[in-house]
Amino acid sequence: MTSVVATITMSLDGYITGPNDAPGRGLGEGGERLHYWVFGGPWTYDTEKLGAATGKDKEHLDRMMSSGGAVVGGRGTYDAAEAWGGTNPWPVPFFIVTHHPEDEPAGKGFTFVNGVEEAILRAREAAGGKNVDIMGGADVIRQALRAGHLDEVWITIAPVVLGGGKRLFDGFDESFDLDPIDATQSRYATHIRYRVLRRR
Amino acid sequence: MTSVVATITMSLDGYITGPNDAPGRGLGEGGERLHYWVFGGPWTYDTEKLGAATGKDKEHLDRMMSSGGAVVGGRGTYDAAEAWGGTNPWPVPFFIVTHHPEDEPAGKGFTFVNGVEEAILRAREAAGGKNVDIMGGADVIRQALRAGHLDEVWITIAPVVLGGGKRLFDGFDESFDLDPIDATQSRYATHIRYRVLRRR
Repeated sequence: MTSVVATITMSLDGYITGPNDAPGRGLGEGGERLHYWVFGGPWTYDTEKLGAATGKDKEHLDRMMSSGGAVVGGRGTYDAAEAWGGTNPWPVPFFIVTHHPEDEPAGKGFTFVNGVEEAILRAREAAGGKNVDIMGGADVIRQALRAGHLDEVWITIAPVVLGGGKRLFDGFDESFDLDPIDATQSRYATHIRYRVLRRR
Repeated sequence: MTSVVATITMSLDGYITGPNDAPGRGLGEGGERLHYWVFGGPWTYDTEKLGAATGKDKEHLDRMMSSGGAVVGGRGTYDAAEAWGGTNPWPVPFFIVTHHPEDEPAGKGFTFVNGVEEAILRAREAAGGKNVDIMGGADVIRQALRAGHLDEVWITIAPVVLGGGKRLFDGFDESFDLDPIDATQSRYATHIRYRVLRRR
């Protein structure tokens, strides 16, 4: 059965980017520290000597990859990531939420759709009974949570205080109960999975 | 050897109180959900049928109690908690940070001191080689972190999104690397312990 799952990494102070993120500047100042866990250790946008996740981090990543049947991402994230080099980096359909579906590049594995609702609907259809992963940005995750579409939140907390950037819950003023599924930890991350329970 | 440890509970969206906390209103709207883990399950300020922590929550609480030799808290927290009924609730010295040390009630186990620096200094002396626990509020923890006084952060994340209140890292604009020590989880909380590494 398909679950809609937000999968995202934030700092202990709640930021999913460092200060001043933008196309060409990745996740902003210090933002790469959020994702040391993905690449097995420290890296920077300058050196780009990227390794692979290990241990608990690899387990978490593998779980995401094996359970996901489609991915939903926001246009801002797509632009900030410079379209992941131009081609869908996932082995499953990738739906990009945008006000400009007509910008969709042909034959690159991205499907541009107008709005979070439609993106989740299309992704559910495409997921073949597997999960829909909502990988961000924060605004897309907030919209999905607010609209009652999220079944689970898989949050990775990087062991950093960033002191600035974009907060996952910026401007979010509703209250929800969550149900912890499990928690694992590596040197570079604490992975916590929750089921989303009722709105309070 | 004494470590100075911030020990505090926040929601997944980073709040250590719900909206509208104040003396007589405890931790604000829904704020008691932050501390279900302390009392073994749901409770409210109305019913006050409080149980005791169990399992991983009890282990975390016991670890705090057995390792702490002195506690530092802020005046706002002291007032919001209505002075814990009038007497120091901990079995160790309790230092309250306030601009008005002259307000100290006599013979109640509280020591009122002027400023975070002095509170930590006095608490270190009183701790007899055990830890100094900084239990909040957020401003006291932020000041201690900013001034380089924190050796560890023991953060408990309650499985709730509160949507408002006081954020632990409100207005905090510095960046730090942390080193995860361990993480445990119960139905009511995820307990993560970090060593504080360098400022970035």
